[in-house]
Amino acid sequence: MTKKDVTLLVCGTVLTMDARQTIIKNGAVAVAGDTIRELGDKKELRAKYGAVPVLETGRGLVMPGLVNVHTHASMALLRGLADDLPLMTWLQEHIFPVEAKLSSELVYQGALLSAMEMIKSGTTSFCDMYLFAKDVARAAEQSGMRAWIGEVLYDFPSPCYGALEHGFVYVDEMFDQYEDHPLVSVTVDPHAVYTCSPDLLVRLKEKAVERGSRYVIHLAETRGEVEGAMAQFGKSPVRHLEGLGLLDGSVLAAHCVALDAGEIALLAERGVKVAHCPESNMKLASGVAPIAALRNALVDVGIGTDGAASNNDVDMFSEMDSAAKLQKVHSLDPTALPASETLAMATMGGARALGAESRIGSLEEGKRADMIVLDLDQPHLTPMYNVASHLVYAARGHDVVHSVINGRPVMENRRLLSMDEEAVLARCRELAGRLTGRPC
Amino acid sequence: MTKKDVTLLVCGTVLTMDARQTIIKNGAVAVAGDTIRELGDKKELRAKYGAVPVLETGRGLVMPGLVNVHTHASMALLRGLADDLPLMTWLQEHIFPVEAKLSSELVYQGALLSAMEMIKSGTTSFCDMYLFAKDVARAAEQSGMRAWIGEVLYDFPSPCYGALEHGFVYVDEMFDQYEDHPLVSVTVDPHAVYTCSPDLLVRLKEKAVERGSRYVIHLAETRGEVEGAMAQFGKSPVRHLEGLGLLDGSVLAAHCVALDAGEIALLAERGVKVAHCPESNMKLASGVAPIAALRNALVDVGIGTDGAASNNDVDMFSEMDSAAKLQKVHSLDPTALPASETLAMATMGGARALGAESRIGSLEEGKRADMIVLDLDQPHLTPMYNVASHLVYAARGHDVVHSVINGRPVMENRRLLSMDEEAVLARCRELAGRLTGRPC
Repeated sequence: MTKKDVTLLVCGTVLTMDARQTIIKNGAVAVAGDTIRELGDKKELRAKYGAVPVLETGRGLVMPGLVNVHTHASMALLRGLADDLPLMTWLQEHIFPVEAKLSSELVYQGALLSAMEMIKSGTTSFCDMYLFAKDVARAAEQSGMRAWIGEVLYDFPSPCYGALEHGFVYVDEMFDQYEDHPLVSVTVDPHAVYTCSPDLLVRLKEKAVERGSRYVIHLAETRGEVEGAMAQFGKSPVRHLEGLGLLDGSVLAAHCVALDAGEIALLAERGVKVAHCPESNMKLASGVAPIAALRNALVDVGIGTDGAASNNDVDMFSEMDSAAKLQKVHSLDPTALPASETLAMATMGGARALGAESRIGSLEEGKRADMIVLDLDQPHLTPMYNVASHLVYAARGHDVVHSVINGRPVMENRRLLSMDEEAVLARCRELAGRLTGRPC
Repeated sequence: MTKKDVTLLVCGTVLTMDARQTIIKNGAVAVAGDTIRELGDKKELRAKYGAVPVLETGRGLVMPGLVNVHTHASMALLRGLADDLPLMTWLQEHIFPVEAKLSSELVYQGALLSAMEMIKSGTTSFCDMYLFAKDVARAAEQSGMRAWIGEVLYDFPSPCYGALEHGFVYVDEMFDQYEDHPLVSVTVDPHAVYTCSPDLLVRLKEKAVERGSRYVIHLAETRGEVEGAMAQFGKSPVRHLEGLGLLDGSVLAAHCVALDAGEIALLAERGVKVAHCPESNMKLASGVAPIAALRNALVDVGIGTDGAASNNDVDMFSEMDSAAKLQKVHSLDPTALPASETLAMATMGGARALGAESRIGSLEEGKRADMIVLDLDQPHLTPMYNVASHLVYAARGHDVVHSVINGRPVMENRRLLSMDEEAVLARCRELAGRLTGRPC
């Protein structure tokens, strides 16, 4: 390796999240292009690599960017449009009527808006399911974020692609467009067992196998979903998928709130990945996912924020806090889901859920350079006894000052480098005003 | 009134939190000394009052400062020292040994640290129970915050005052010292029914009556506390206090997790106020307080963060979010504790819990000028359909840019005006290092 290869040094206390939980005080991460070239002592690496650009902050903590394994980014445009309502009233009277008006432009601007919020709160990778997914992907590309993006499919006409057969064409076009893309991966996204026929679920599985992609689905989100599947198929949603032969290691199942012990064992046996979305489950009153049992069964669990309309933010630091606390109060066990495990779920756990553990989720030589720098020089983070505790229970997205994705700085001193924040905010206000007929 | 009286204009969209939920767009609050003199249109008030100092920000929201009705500020120094442990292990092996080493200086610096965090996250009033309360009060005075402060008393020797009788002297000295103080009120604080004999509980009640103060106590925090009281007194903690004739409108009861329906009715009948601390109850796995039932019974409920060692922050915005979501998921009812009610709990609800509803909790002519200004020009707060939704579900303490307490600006553009942030952080790191024998 030559000095010339290294393009960036990111300096601070380095929390690697590697298997040995290595922490390097006064450390640095040397980046070459999109890759982590070396980790080590800051002075040594600065001497070795000389005059390369440096990102750091006083009392900075360098850590892997957070991985948000389930969101609907464009719903940032719908945040706060309606809250505190019964699920069906919320969906049918507020969300669906607006979603019926969705357009490429609304989805694109909403995804840009969410990407800004995600970068500014420490997320570097996200997995998105929504309508007009090509526009989500276009926004993701512009933002510089790493993304897994799927067009949601179901057995009724879509505002995006119209009839179902066009949906398959749309998905194929996306796969072709993003083949070998460094940042955007395409997924196959059946909405749920209650909106997709067995035939559609199977056909989409074939597509996922053909393309070697993740198969992302909402699964067992509520007790009502289970009751519906029992009535319709005589089986729970999990056993329905199992009966169709669809459960395997490519499945990323969002929510998994309403599971029994046998289903947990089955998900583990099949290698299914789980996206845990505690704040959405709380706000929509869906219930509490059995995360401790899933983890005990060695299921890979990542953390997701779900969309901003049911959360109402996409701050993964806040989501970690809620995840850890919700497990404790629900089980009446304060030792449930400790901070270190929660932090692992939001980093390496997310990477595993997306099948990207060899590339992201920790700071290690040869991995992609996705990392964030937090400013610890603040009252709510002082003094510092335990870094995992602070990151989960006290830090918030706003403590992130720099972000690097695939070796590219996308935020420096909280200024976004990849997007025009003011222009996006203005455009989103305008679009929201048109949606509602009043200033927003 | 003359122009000269007005000392400050705070401008923006004004969310008054008055009984009519008035919102003034392009509004302003005119402050004269410690008091709100007038609310109205920004242009009109600027023209009327001319060249007085102005606090505002682009797309700013002016609202009442948040009221944190239960905390142990100095525990900011212990944040993250130990987490994720069974309650008794956490207390006996980690918190109590450190608290045995407490000193005036530790408590003072810890309270300054917490006051900085509170101001920077939008809290303007707090109610504190801890050891060395005179030092908490000294820190509160320096910070410029409004505070209700009590020395915790119990039937064993205190690291602060030693034998119990000295505790009564200490409390009397505090009352004398802060008589008619504009910002600091003294409270009488029996720790709990499991640490205070009936005789002590009664004697402290007499003290509270004599001094006309709030009587602040941890009450029914856990199922274990109820079982202990049943075993010791044959009565639940609530009924034990009732049996001693201690329940009335001066009681501020923290937690109230483990209540039955009869106890809720009793608390309502006696006018007892409740401090709801959802994040601490979650993290310590204490359980979920029956807030909907308490509010239906017309009990005044405020929101508290509890100490930073069991939360681990004192951000009241985050606490509102957790309060609303926890009620929903616990009751499996998404309509439980809507955003507007949660916001009311953290403002007027807190004021009522402290008996200060005529002075704080809303922005109205004649009330004390305690207010904060949030910067809404951010991705996670754009677009804006419903202000209460955004404040509860999306805003965080860091969105607060200005803070005014009792008419005095204590933070401007996130710079603290009443405290030397850098010096306090350095001192707290030094003290934490001495406590643990390693750099913090």
